[in-house]
Amino acid sequence: MKITIAENAGFCYGVMRAISMADEYIKKKGSIYSFGPIIHNPQVVADYEHKGMHVIESIGDANKPVLIRSHGVPSDVYMKMQSKNIKYIDATCPFVKEAQDYVKHLSEEGYSVVIIGDKHHPEVKAHISYADSKAVVINSVDDAKKVNMERIGVISQTTQSVDRFSKIVGELSKHCKELKVYNTICDATKNRQDAASSLAKVSDVMIVIGGRNSANTRRLYEICKHYCDKTYHIETAKEIDNSWFTNAESIGITAGASTPSYIIERVFNYIKEL
Amino acid sequence: MKITIAENAGFCYGVMRAISMADEYIKKKGSIYSFGPIIHNPQVVADYEHKGMHVIESIGDANKPVLIRSHGVPSDVYMKMQSKNIKYIDATCPFVKEAQDYVKHLSEEGYSVVIIGDKHHPEVKAHISYADSKAVVINSVDDAKKVNMERIGVISQTTQSVDRFSKIVGELSKHCKELKVYNTICDATKNRQDAASSLAKVSDVMIVIGGRNSANTRRLYEICKHYCDKTYHIETAKEIDNSWFTNAESIGITAGASTPSYIIERVFNYIKEL
Repeated sequence: MKITIAENAGFCYGVMRAISMADEYIKKKGSIYSFGPIIHNPQVVADYEHKGMHVIESIGDANKPVLIRSHGVPSDVYMKMQSKNIKYIDATCPFVKEAQDYVKHLSEEGYSVVIIGDKHHPEVKAHISYADSKAVVINSVDDAKKVNMERIGVISQTTQSVDRFSKIVGELSKHCKELKVYNTICDATKNRQDAASSLAKVSDVMIVIGGRNSANTRRLYEICKHYCDKTYHIETAKEIDNSWFTNAESIGITAGASTPSYIIERVFNYIKEL
Repeated sequence: MKITIAENAGFCYGVMRAISMADEYIKKKGSIYSFGPIIHNPQVVADYEHKGMHVIESIGDANKPVLIRSHGVPSDVYMKMQSKNIKYIDATCPFVKEAQDYVKHLSEEGYSVVIIGDKHHPEVKAHISYADSKAVVINSVDDAKKVNMERIGVISQTTQSVDRFSKIVGELSKHCKELKVYNTICDATKNRQDAASSLAKVSDVMIVIGGRNSANTRRLYEICKHYCDKTYHIETAKEIDNSWFTNAESIGITAGASTPSYIIERVFNYIKEL
């Protein structure tokens, strides 16, 4: 039995940066708030709860410094923090920040802003705010078919699937006179998806590790499932059902941007010992 | 047997305008040169040869006023005409002119200009010149896969197929950071293609009339052939083979932008009399 971990599996730059900013602060000051879970991984969030990072869901609850997670926050959160004199450490991923800047720029240039992504995702909720909350969020070619505007400005959730993004952009080009697109899918996402799909093509079983609330992990699952019927999404090694590997000769493992390497290693070792 | 002529078949606005500008001039002055055949329809060109419009292939050959046809001309042709004091009547289709302006604009804004169309077509040859001849011409998704540039500015040949255009735009969005697209497919083309595909879906035989050198007619043929296996491209009624209609109950007719109504009528009447 051959077990391969896909290249680019696990933590991306933005997540690593947020984690190390949190670590540094906790080391110095002992504790910090996180506005929403720092990453979409319940295991890591539980670990940090012990270390001294407490999750708050409303910025009004903060009476000590707040970490802004890599997903970023809507523009009014900065205003609230300033008006309430709340200190904050901004760990918004630089690639997410760049996408926010593009939204602002497109909106100022008079484009009708369309965001390709999941409207319930915190990253996307933040993006919308930079177009004065007038942006439209779409997530499928069918959604794109309903759009009809003169000048459309497009950005993408940074963890979108490249294929879905390009199909939606193609459809949008039929429904406007002018289309300006910033491809804001981050390289880490693209490389992780490419490596995962290459591995899924040659694997009998694919294991995708990551939080069930992690959008980029769910997309990795969809991509792998397309090429490998026996694809399973797990959060930790405990969820593995040994029967998945019956007659399997090649097993592939990949993991979302918010999955720490120790969880990937445990899964790898568990399967190896079968 | 039911025979239906598709809506929007035949002459488009730009062609009608060029023809009427030529007619008006010939009525007043007796004769004129046309720089290249006025439209991609041999029958019409032959008719106009009799009326007094002579085709020249080099602007240097002109010793009387020249008609610039609806496809437009490269920017250096205007310069040559000015330097040689050649009078001209500019019948460039306003929609083609608009696309030329977009090419210039994109080029000035620093985009790498990509034109979606046929590089051998006079309209496209003219477009290229407005990007200082630095534009890339592509005509398929495979072509788009080879493009790799930071900032891409896109326009389309005005008679491109909408579906092909949107697929190519979607592919291009994967190969750049920023994409600005002007959808310059003219409404007449889009409406003609939509009507032709609707008719092809319910016809046993489809007849597409137009010059073999007419790009938009060839695209109409491709679109109809996709929905109706028995699709035939003809220039005139003389090319019809009666066996095409054996057992056919519904026959559809459409025609390219450069096909005059009298040719469409002759085809209709020929089939009706079978």
